Amino acid sequence: MLFTNLEFNQQQQNRMRALVAPDEVHFGNPEQIREADREAFLKAEIAFGWCPPEWLAEAEGLRWMQFDSVGIGEYAHLDWDRLSTRVTCTNLRGFFAEPVAETVLAGILALYRGIDRLVELQPRRAWMKLTLRPQLKMLANTTVVLVGHGALGQRLKVLLAPFGCRVIAYDRFAEGADLTQLAELDAVLPGADIVCAALPDTPDTRGLFDEARFGLLKAGALFVNVGRGSLVVENVLVAHLLSGRLGGAVLDVTQQEPLPGEHPLWQCPSTILTQHTAGGSSDELDRKITFFAENLRCYRQGMPLDNVINWTRGF
Amino acid sequence: MLFTNLEFNQQQQNRMRALVAPDEVHFGNPEQIREADREAFLKAEIAFGWCPPEWLAEAEGLRWMQFDSVGIGEYAHLDWDRLSTRVTCTNLRGFFAEPVAETVLAGILALYRGIDRLVELQPRRAWMKLTLRPQLKMLANTTVVLVGHGALGQRLKVLLAPFGCRVIAYDRFAEGADLTQLAELDAVLPGADIVCAALPDTPDTRGLFDEARFGLLKAGALFVNVGRGSLVVENVLVAHLLSGRLGGAVLDVTQQEPLPGEHPLWQCPSTILTQHTAGGSSDELDRKITFFAENLRCYRQGMPLDNVINWTRGF
Repeated sequence: MLFTNLEFNQQQQNRMRALVAPDEVHFGNPEQIREADREAFLKAEIAFGWCPPEWLAEAEGLRWMQFDSVGIGEYAHLDWDRLSTRVTCTNLRGFFAEPVAETVLAGILALYRGIDRLVELQPRRAWMKLTLRPQLKMLANTTVVLVGHGALGQRLKVLLAPFGCRVIAYDRFAEGADLTQLAELDAVLPGADIVCAALPDTPDTRGLFDEARFGLLKAGALFVNVGRGSLVVENVLVAHLLSGRLGGAVLDVTQQEPLPGEHPLWQCPSTILTQHTAGGSSDELDRKITFFAENLRCYRQGMPLDNVINWTRGF
Repeated sequence: MLFTNLEFNQQQQNRMRALVAPDEVHFGNPEQIREADREAFLKAEIAFGWCPPEWLAEAEGLRWMQFDSVGIGEYAHLDWDRLSTRVTCTNLRGFFAEPVAETVLAGILALYRGIDRLVELQPRRAWMKLTLRPQLKMLANTTVVLVGHGALGQRLKVLLAPFGCRVIAYDRFAEGADLTQLAELDAVLPGADIVCAALPDTPDTRGLFDEARFGLLKAGALFVNVGRGSLVVENVLVAHLLSGRLGGAVLDVTQQEPLPGEHPLWQCPSTILTQHTAGGSSDELDRKITFFAENLRCYRQGMPLDNVINWTRGF
């Protein structure tokens, strides 16, 4: 049996049923867990979606879990030395590269070209042409440092190429990175006009952007984070934004999500909070089903699955 | 003597003086015309900036006028058959291609990736992740019709290439356009996800986007105008935006600028008014001086100038 708990409409449910036939599908409640969902999960061979971490340890018959996200931080503390002998986990690494890259570029260009200020002026019907024009920046020929060179960083590099940006990528693991050591990253940060971080949440990445590292950025630099909020020591980032030392920020992720109403990031200057929407698109769920279908084909034919999680590495 | 009336700072004034030495420079008032400016203009051999159109007919000694804009519509009614025998006029065609292309992309990506709505949510500290995500669109693989294939259109085509967009360019004159006839344009408009117009103001382009032509666009299409406001029949555009038939608009130009406070465009849905800032950048004036300096070198050596205006064609 297949367990799934995503927000499928009727058409998508039918597509799922056709995919796994003659096996049955249990459609769990995507909003709130019910006891029937837990019972179904414990009987499932395949799961597609998410679950409370403790379910994974109890699901004796589960052979393959396809998470519907990239981040899997909340499952990392399980006993994977034992669990991984019976269940293979896959995530959606790479799936969000295109929408996230487009949101990153949308955010950077919005700040450089004044779109955020123009949008704010509109309800006030305030014509500020002459004030704004000399404040606008161009992305052309800037230096962009990518902290993380996974699927998103690689896609961003392609989209930035025609702007003539100098792109420098740091990544300890990913192929094609220019830099693999933190000391090398720190050496290039002072030259960056834009720093774009897209790293997973691991013990090594938590708090990587602290007082010392933000202090390396040059005055007016833009900081972008589309990986995980744990990368950033937020009170330091807030201080650099409020003082105007940083030129702005585009943040898709924060330590707490939803961001609490009293959090100072809501009103930092030149800061665009994309509210963890960067991976979204109107066809997101249909694309996820297509990804699952391709991995299901591999599973049934005994071929290696795409995006198998390495629990030792943590992503 | 050189007449100029741009908003130079002291350093830029010094640069101008050094460029034209041993000739003298008259720095006119950029904010408001004074009688001394008119007197200087009438004695000048070269002018760099702008002037009331009637001055051009009176300036017997003027040999070269470098306008500091692309659009020259307000001068078109002068008697150029006679005037052009004594004065050569050049404009800044192509100069704004990079900043305008970046603003066009900023505006399109803002609408597709929800940046306009996210910016509006921020002062209200409203977390809308789950509402927004399924409404976002991707630029990847869309069809973009460029109405005008001058420097801006050509630059935009380069920036759009890595998104995998299908780009179709219409232009009656410019090289490399896919379509040169209005009937051909009308045949492709129904397939466009995005229409980006960048045409000069001429008798042929005025009101080109009227009820019939907007009616050809498919539901949800985006309309961008960075050429001249006269291209658009604005009450028709407003109606299509208010009804939701058009998916949104990015407008750098309007019939009246500044846009009057009571104009309905200020509050049309999914409409970003960039307030004629698209050509702007912090280094705009320095870049203009550099352009002028290169044309001045040609002028002095009797070589052809860049961007000579063809008054018969109208741009």
